[in-house]
Amino acid sequence: MTIIMHDLAGADSALRFSPYCWRIRFALAHKGLPVETIPWRFTDKPAIAFSGQGRVPVIRDGETVVADSWAIAEYLEAQYPAPPLFGSASAQAHARFINAWADAVLVGGIARLILRDIYDVIDPADRVYFRQSREARFGTSLEETQAGRETHVAAFRELLTPLRLVLRAQPWLGGAAPSYADAIIAGSLMWPRCSSRFAVLADGDVVTAWFERMLDQYDGLGRQAVRA
Amino acid sequence: MTIIMHDLAGADSALRFSPYCWRIRFALAHKGLPVETIPWRFTDKPAIAFSGQGRVPVIRDGETVVADSWAIAEYLEAQYPAPPLFGSASAQAHARFINAWADAVLVGGIARLILRDIYDVIDPADRVYFRQSREARFGTSLEETQAGRETHVAAFRELLTPLRLVLRAQPWLGGAAPSYADAIIAGSLMWPRCSSRFAVLADGDVVTAWFERMLDQYDGLGRQAVRA
Repeated sequence: MTIIMHDLAGADSALRFSPYCWRIRFALAHKGLPVETIPWRFTDKPAIAFSGQGRVPVIRDGETVVADSWAIAEYLEAQYPAPPLFGSASAQAHARFINAWADAVLVGGIARLILRDIYDVIDPADRVYFRQSREARFGTSLEETQAGRETHVAAFRELLTPLRLVLRAQPWLGGAAPSYADAIIAGSLMWPRCSSRFAVLADGDVVTAWFERMLDQYDGLGRQAVRA
Repeated sequence: MTIIMHDLAGADSALRFSPYCWRIRFALAHKGLPVETIPWRFTDKPAIAFSGQGRVPVIRDGETVVADSWAIAEYLEAQYPAPPLFGSASAQAHARFINAWADAVLVGGIARLILRDIYDVIDPADRVYFRQSREARFGTSLEETQAGRETHVAAFRELLTPLRLVLRAQPWLGGAAPSYADAIIAGSLMWPRCSSRFAVLADGDVVTAWFERMLDQYDGLGRQAVRA
């Protein structure tokens, strides 16, 4: 049965850029599970009220509803074990650290580079909500958040050092093949790729080379995504 | 056969504080492998020249010599599979990210809090080497590096957010039981515990509670370690 996924969309409903939704798009593709995505906007809380909360991704798999990207990944692994997203209980436990790092460090770092650009691509109905909620979170205007990004991007790229050390030693974060760890980081990087034209990654970086390979995985799922 | 491990020691040869050696002490204890440690000082390069490089930990297991904590962990897992340090190839691949984060973020963050304290506990013969090499690496004096630490420790504790997110969701970094991921982080935290009296962790932090549990693991191996 096709899994239904509520997926953040821009003013152009083909534009999908949520870092959390992209983690699950990659995870579903990894497992070869067909998905039908339903475009969703930040302020369309009623459309996902059935999930008991107000954020995407939300999936519906038959009678089962799961929200939150990490919970969805765990659900998919339990329900559809092969091919594995994790590979073992300890692999899943270790991946949770990578997920936490992506949430706490990577997503926040990217936000400071592209927040104003996102404002330009979201649905007009979302703009007041987006500006107010993000300006409250970052304590400054959208414009100020990404001001000076040509300079600040160097510090952002420094934050990627742990990824760089790993990818110098192994082709994928999952080791010899991609795992959910690759979906987490590549999903997070689909956010700037799809919502902005600002290059958060540097040419020649091993992280960039890995991301390019991830774009080509799963029949080019990432590569083909609509960009702003 | 008892494994021999060359282990960084202070002026007091019972004082052992290397974050990399401690990772392996925990790993050996996890596998129930007996170890005989040989105290080593920074400048005693000839004593480990047989390993082809100049840093500890170095282990000798019969005829086999392995240097570098990550390589040693991989060797131990391959040679003595049970109980597992990783649990699967993907668990090992994911743990490499945690190791890289510890090396790039955690160890550097701790250094800025305790570098001058370490100078006080190392062997007098190591002091010129230690001061010159660390001042070159950090671009400032040992004294300046840890100046203002009462204030800077707050930013250090912010860096621990990914650990905090994980440990709110599961008791160990390895999940239901400790894995090499726990050895990596706890080993790194043994460095300030043994070489300084400055509290890098905050009371009431979930990371602190986890570290206290790790100190009691393996018959209190960490708890019993000599402190400066």
